[in-house]
Amino acid sequence: MPVATTDPQVKPPAKVSFDRDPGSYLHWRLRVDGPVAWVDLDVAEDGGLRPGYELKLNSYDLGVDIELYDLTQRLRFEHPEVRAVVLGSAKDKVFCAGANIRMLAGATHEWKVNFCKFTNETRNGMEDATEHSGQTWLAAVNGSCAGGGYELALACSRILLVDDNSSTVALPEVPLLGVLPGTGGLTRVVDKRGVRKDRADVFATRQDGVKGDTAVDWKLVDELVPRREFADVVRNRALAAAESSPRPRGGTGIRLAPLEREETADRIAYPHVTAELERERGLVAITVCGPRDEPPGDLHAQGDRSWLLALTRELDDLVLRLRTNEPELGTWVIRTEGDPADVLAHERAVLAAAPEDWLCNEILHYYKRTLKRLDVTSRSLIALIEPGSCFAGVLLELALACDRQYILDGPPIDDEAGEDRAAIFLTEANFGGFPMGNGISRLESRFYGEHEHLDWLRRERDRPLSAAEAQELGLVTDAPDDLDWEDEIRIVLEGRAALSPDALTGMEANHRFVGPETMETKIFGRLAAWQNWIFTRPNAAGPEGALRRYGTGQKAVFDGKRV
Amino acid sequence: MPVATTDPQVKPPAKVSFDRDPGSYLHWRLRVDGPVAWVDLDVAEDGGLRPGYELKLNSYDLGVDIELYDLTQRLRFEHPEVRAVVLGSAKDKVFCAGANIRMLAGATHEWKVNFCKFTNETRNGMEDATEHSGQTWLAAVNGSCAGGGYELALACSRILLVDDNSSTVALPEVPLLGVLPGTGGLTRVVDKRGVRKDRADVFATRQDGVKGDTAVDWKLVDELVPRREFADVVRNRALAAAESSPRPRGGTGIRLAPLEREETADRIAYPHVTAELERERGLVAITVCGPRDEPPGDLHAQGDRSWLLALTRELDDLVLRLRTNEPELGTWVIRTEGDPADVLAHERAVLAAAPEDWLCNEILHYYKRTLKRLDVTSRSLIALIEPGSCFAGVLLELALACDRQYILDGPPIDDEAGEDRAAIFLTEANFGGFPMGNGISRLESRFYGEHEHLDWLRRERDRPLSAAEAQELGLVTDAPDDLDWEDEIRIVLEGRAALSPDALTGMEANHRFVGPETMETKIFGRLAAWQNWIFTRPNAAGPEGALRRYGTGQKAVFDGKRV
Repeated sequence: MPVATTDPQVKPPAKVSFDRDPGSYLHWRLRVDGPVAWVDLDVAEDGGLRPGYELKLNSYDLGVDIELYDLTQRLRFEHPEVRAVVLGSAKDKVFCAGANIRMLAGATHEWKVNFCKFTNETRNGMEDATEHSGQTWLAAVNGSCAGGGYELALACSRILLVDDNSSTVALPEVPLLGVLPGTGGLTRVVDKRGVRKDRADVFATRQDGVKGDTAVDWKLVDELVPRREFADVVRNRALAAAESSPRPRGGTGIRLAPLEREETADRIAYPHVTAELERERGLVAITVCGPRDEPPGDLHAQGDRSWLLALTRELDDLVLRLRTNEPELGTWVIRTEGDPADVLAHERAVLAAAPEDWLCNEILHYYKRTLKRLDVTSRSLIALIEPGSCFAGVLLELALACDRQYILDGPPIDDEAGEDRAAIFLTEANFGGFPMGNGISRLESRFYGEHEHLDWLRRERDRPLSAAEAQELGLVTDAPDDLDWEDEIRIVLEGRAALSPDALTGMEANHRFVGPETMETKIFGRLAAWQNWIFTRPNAAGPEGALRRYGTGQKAVFDGKRV
Repeated sequence: MPVATTDPQVKPPAKVSFDRDPGSYLHWRLRVDGPVAWVDLDVAEDGGLRPGYELKLNSYDLGVDIELYDLTQRLRFEHPEVRAVVLGSAKDKVFCAGANIRMLAGATHEWKVNFCKFTNETRNGMEDATEHSGQTWLAAVNGSCAGGGYELALACSRILLVDDNSSTVALPEVPLLGVLPGTGGLTRVVDKRGVRKDRADVFATRQDGVKGDTAVDWKLVDELVPRREFADVVRNRALAAAESSPRPRGGTGIRLAPLEREETADRIAYPHVTAELERERGLVAITVCGPRDEPPGDLHAQGDRSWLLALTRELDDLVLRLRTNEPELGTWVIRTEGDPADVLAHERAVLAAAPEDWLCNEILHYYKRTLKRLDVTSRSLIALIEPGSCFAGVLLELALACDRQYILDGPPIDDEAGEDRAAIFLTEANFGGFPMGNGISRLESRFYGEHEHLDWLRRERDRPLSAAEAQELGLVTDAPDDLDWEDEIRIVLEGRAALSPDALTGMEANHRFVGPETMETKIFGRLAAWQNWIFTRPNAAGPEGALRRYGTGQKAVFDGKRV
């Protein structure tokens, strides 16, 4: 497990990297054929990210899912021509057996929870591609499809099941492992597919799953297809989905080159994002940089180097690495650096072209998804708005995603003229451009139900808002002056570090999602919270628990008390 | 802890009883003065339900809350004249210190979770009285008001705080105890009171709370009142609330007499409800009886003996006792017995008079709340619909609240003429009369988004639906015939008993709440699930955890990893 250690005798495990490239995928085959991408799961049994388990029957671990995430991103940016994606399996009679059980049984609690969060985000990303990029995912289930395997299919908008009297869909987590189908399974079965809840109950307590007409009847799959017609029918469905896709035609993809990243023990630096890992204080100081030039006339020509895309890729990578590799750094302090005018110019360029311009559309949705990652990150997020910062429009969302926002009110200590004061900028992008998982903007969530206040904010767009104004408008938590700034921030950060990490995780998960709920927030809120609870319980994770005893030939022993 | 034991040397602790009467309250003072009820918390330090803790500073345990629950019920049924309720404290400068920490620190996991569930239901009941009975609860906070104490105030529709420079409201759970304000606190602060989420973050991480103008400014309280004006202002606010209450005037209350209950080791029996505790099989067989006579001409004259009210009181009591005292009986099998025509006649009588008739209104809302208790009960619920049953209208809701419904298709084995076949009846009451916590009916939840199907169901109201029809209409999970019935049900119940109790709890909590979310479902879903997780974590409940170390002078030791 990736935990920092100071004991020289214990070698820290290698940090997890999220760098992948289709040329080196171990577990997936990707073939693009005109408007259809064929994505086949073909897990290498000996290709686990960690030692100690074999990835049999197309079961997956974090490494398999990191490749899938890379693949979803490349389809969106490198393949504008793709308008339908068929998720299949390269193995005979096995679609996917779900998350590898030995891996789960041997993992620490924080690893399991982080693994589930990432896999959930990847499946949400598949739905996001279907909804917002016209890349409709279809599941071609050519064999047994169980647990996380069926949850992968559930993330697709259509599920085709081969009708061979042996292929089934199943959620056997409850009966076999004593845990939940926590990668969206329970939620999507009833909320997305509309399976009647008593049938969902039968389905999720039956280890051998459901097949044939019953699977269609219960709405667990959309269509049953004889094996010899399977390839044709799948192709036809994919072509039909591609045909009706709103994805603009005629674009040329851009290449997502490997990220430039410099990493030392206490620093991770990219061209636009740096992170100082302050281990003594238990925090990460993240700085996001604004653009260094005017927006390009042609964003396409810049490829993956255009500012907002480059920044998003770096921030996304940083969030994933910190979450997975640095669980002890519980507070992330977020700053920005740059000229707000340049941020706004770049924002305007991207916004003006989207959604008609497929690339601009992708950049905005990618930034949206990355902000959503922040929203569900179990770290305290504190924005520090100082002179020289550029929390404007798109970048102001970073501050609004934080649990608290502090702005320095007054000239910086070494600037007596006071010309360089901190300011923030609201733009139209803050009013719905980057909805949270609950479907509303961060401003609407901050001022939930206060329509008049939101109207007032809208009138204050597109101009610098001083510390005093930001405070009056409720956009910051506090605005200490330059005499108090250092002390107050120090006290805030020390105070945070002294609190129970678990209580903070629970508190933040509740406060951040005010108001409405969606399938996404139900998955990250209710489903994940129950799963995390179950992961801590001896009935699942104890030495005699179902998760640990699976496959040993010994039956699990349960404490029969209902809680 | 109330756990069955077969070891004769370990004396099982006394079972918890929910029987209370204002004449014997230990912790509350109730005074009704015209349209206003004055409810003062005055906790007896030595009056804890269990040994091992003192209830200092108006802190509460389950016993204190059972009295509060009794009180809320009596206000609704015995006091139709009450139109506003003032929740105060009889202690000087202390409103309420919240749940007793020593009690929590020493309690088992299942006790803590069950305690929180019950207290949540009681607070939801206060809001229900405000919304549906015209009994508006106001909190008169005359001193320090912390944790569960502030959560009590949050359940009121208006919070008045005395302005004496020392009285505060606080949610110190996170900084002091490493747990959440889990009795609705985190949710109500942001979702009900509209506190800005960064301020909610500051508030819930600050152990000394907020007072004075800041408390008003942040919307944590509604009004600040100087001490010498406090009594007058509170009275005026209460009279104003009473004045605008829609509660019908001129009613005469009915008395809620002590329940008739016979209890043995394996049986709890009331006049209309019986429960056989089948310990070997890990289940409870519950039978609910229909009315034994025609509806009375005057329901008021029958008082608490009218069928639906009597039944509801008994069922409510049974649910609470089983939840608290029988955690090892993980499956509840629910049957009914009686003449459906009588059920429907009684239902019509109550429905026809409500909501104008205050008593009928109260009966329906009480039955609604009791069904909601079932919805959040962490037990598997299985309805068995057999010949001689009366799952009609109001009682059909019991079946719809279950995780599964089985109906016997065919004549009972000893009735060759087949005259007495099982049937169910839909009535208008099933289409919104008893909404779940998520605001929709159990039918709408069962057929979420299927408007045409719901229309079809509506056309099938008010007639017996046979097993075959019930199955075609999707109202039952299965309809075994008389040859298969016993085997199939046995297999279902044995299968259920073999599964992990924790996985079932998590699964049912997710499946039962399809579709929309409300403050109530957020509290029972997300907030409670996170709290349950935190309760299992060493950072709170371990020997060095914050909950266990509070008050010992020793600081908690935290595992710093964020999960």
